[in-house]
Amino acid sequence: MSLKIGVVGLGSMGYGIAQSVLRAGHVTYGFDVVPEQQARFVSEGGSEGNLADTAAMLDAVMVVVLNAAQCEHVLFGDAGIVARMKAGSVVIACATVPPDFARDMEQRCNASGVHYLDAPISGGAVKAAQGCLSVMASGAPLAFEAAKPVLDATAETVFELGDSAGAGSAMKAVNQMLAGVHIAMMAEAMTFGMTQGVQPQQFLEVISKCAGSSWMLENRAPHVINGDYTPRSSVDIWPKDLGIVLDIAKSANFNAPITSVALEQFLAASSTGHGNEDDAAVAKVYARQANLTLPGEDASDKEVASEKEVE
Amino acid sequence: MSLKIGVVGLGSMGYGIAQSVLRAGHVTYGFDVVPEQQARFVSEGGSEGNLADTAAMLDAVMVVVLNAAQCEHVLFGDAGIVARMKAGSVVIACATVPPDFARDMEQRCNASGVHYLDAPISGGAVKAAQGCLSVMASGAPLAFEAAKPVLDATAETVFELGDSAGAGSAMKAVNQMLAGVHIAMMAEAMTFGMTQGVQPQQFLEVISKCAGSSWMLENRAPHVINGDYTPRSSVDIWPKDLGIVLDIAKSANFNAPITSVALEQFLAASSTGHGNEDDAAVAKVYARQANLTLPGEDASDKEVASEKEVE
Repeated sequence: MSLKIGVVGLGSMGYGIAQSVLRAGHVTYGFDVVPEQQARFVSEGGSEGNLADTAAMLDAVMVVVLNAAQCEHVLFGDAGIVARMKAGSVVIACATVPPDFARDMEQRCNASGVHYLDAPISGGAVKAAQGCLSVMASGAPLAFEAAKPVLDATAETVFELGDSAGAGSAMKAVNQMLAGVHIAMMAEAMTFGMTQGVQPQQFLEVISKCAGSSWMLENRAPHVINGDYTPRSSVDIWPKDLGIVLDIAKSANFNAPITSVALEQFLAASSTGHGNEDDAAVAKVYARQANLTLPGEDASDKEVASEKEVE
Repeated sequence: MSLKIGVVGLGSMGYGIAQSVLRAGHVTYGFDVVPEQQARFVSEGGSEGNLADTAAMLDAVMVVVLNAAQCEHVLFGDAGIVARMKAGSVVIACATVPPDFARDMEQRCNASGVHYLDAPISGGAVKAAQGCLSVMASGAPLAFEAAKPVLDATAETVFELGDSAGAGSAMKAVNQMLAGVHIAMMAEAMTFGMTQGVQPQQFLEVISKCAGSSWMLENRAPHVINGDYTPRSSVDIWPKDLGIVLDIAKSANFNAPITSVALEQFLAASSTGHGNEDDAAVAKVYARQANLTLPGEDASDKEVASEKEVE
């Protein structure tokens, strides 16, 4: 069954999602604040139209924005889509947000006759483009039903975590908490090893086969080893996501000391100019403090220096 | 070739190692400060004899003790074995120790004509008994050669990390750093999830398939879920091992903030009476602070209460 689907936010994740929806045979609209992104998607087969005018026709809208504020703006801002969407259509909300926010959005969508699926995503840009995301989803059975064609087109794994919004966002927060800490910890351990003569390549070879391994260690250590900080996921994601996690924790009177310290390491990476680099660049915080030279670091230091000279 | 092998320390790891060496057809002596452990090993086919009298006959001694002090005592204490061992025999040192300590032991063994292999082990008691340990080894080629029959009998994977002592211990420190933090982080994330309605079983099912997973999370989360704190590896291992890590870090002027905070969580677990429980009991520190009830916790709370009444 071919549906009319909108994807709001054509960043690295959203663009891949839109491509996957299109490939599945749906009439697919991609929307972004950057007109060039939208035009690029049209040139690849996407349908043309602006969000406000199109919203009433859409069967489902997947909202792939950065945070709760952007999500609320899309849904209920000045040109908010929920008031325009038809009864029985569904909002699939993918940003990492507090569970309470998700519950609020669900209630307000339902009040307008629109289904809401709390559906944070995991997997990165490559899996988004392949239609192989993991989705941590919760919502009413009718929301799942309405979202099914879109989930089928974009996800390899859909975790069905409950029959109302909030549970998906809660699990996503838990996952981000672990993922962020494990990245920072990869950096802490790799650079600690360097002070003891353990080379980064050897670190990865041995530790990935031992009890100290993590999904993130295996995924991110190669970035440091290759000196490649092209952002697949940037440093600045983590002050945001771990900030959300700690806000939720605070509301629950929950003390998360390890997460708090990891957040500080990402803040240090961001404040020293690495916010737009790959999140593995948190290793640079450790390397600088310990006076270590990371693989490829001499070259990038020179780039930073010459950029400063230009300014 | 059947050799005469000694295993010093018949704790959960050492006992399994001794069994594996025996199974490989070597004349195997097990030594322990607890006579019952030694007698038990003899009853399973081990050879009888005390360490001081036997040392001169042994081709290799695997030292499976808790820390550097115990290792030094075995090798160079009042009844130290190195002075008694024959030229060309080898000490295989398995404790987690500072790299500098390993280098010192190597030098002093070599001065007595005894080879030294810096060979910290990983894998746990079950793998020790199966002869399937991972060994992070460094030492002179002749030390590796002399140790080979013992490594063949006990290890599935031998990482050859360099031609002198220190590199093995450095890699072990790196691994312990990650492993300890990942256990504490599993506990932090699981209990945080509980405050948001994520049940421990669901936590394991979902996160183990997502980017937030770690080897330790998959291994230890089931202990909390089952409320089973039978110590496979106890809480008190971690103040020791993370303490060694942080001592090494301090010597190198290296700042390891995440590791430091994780150590504090294990200290809190130990100081509140959980030191001899499985290290997953670090979750109890978080649960108590957040007023959460872990699976099976009511029952164990009652046990603690009745023990106190008896005292």
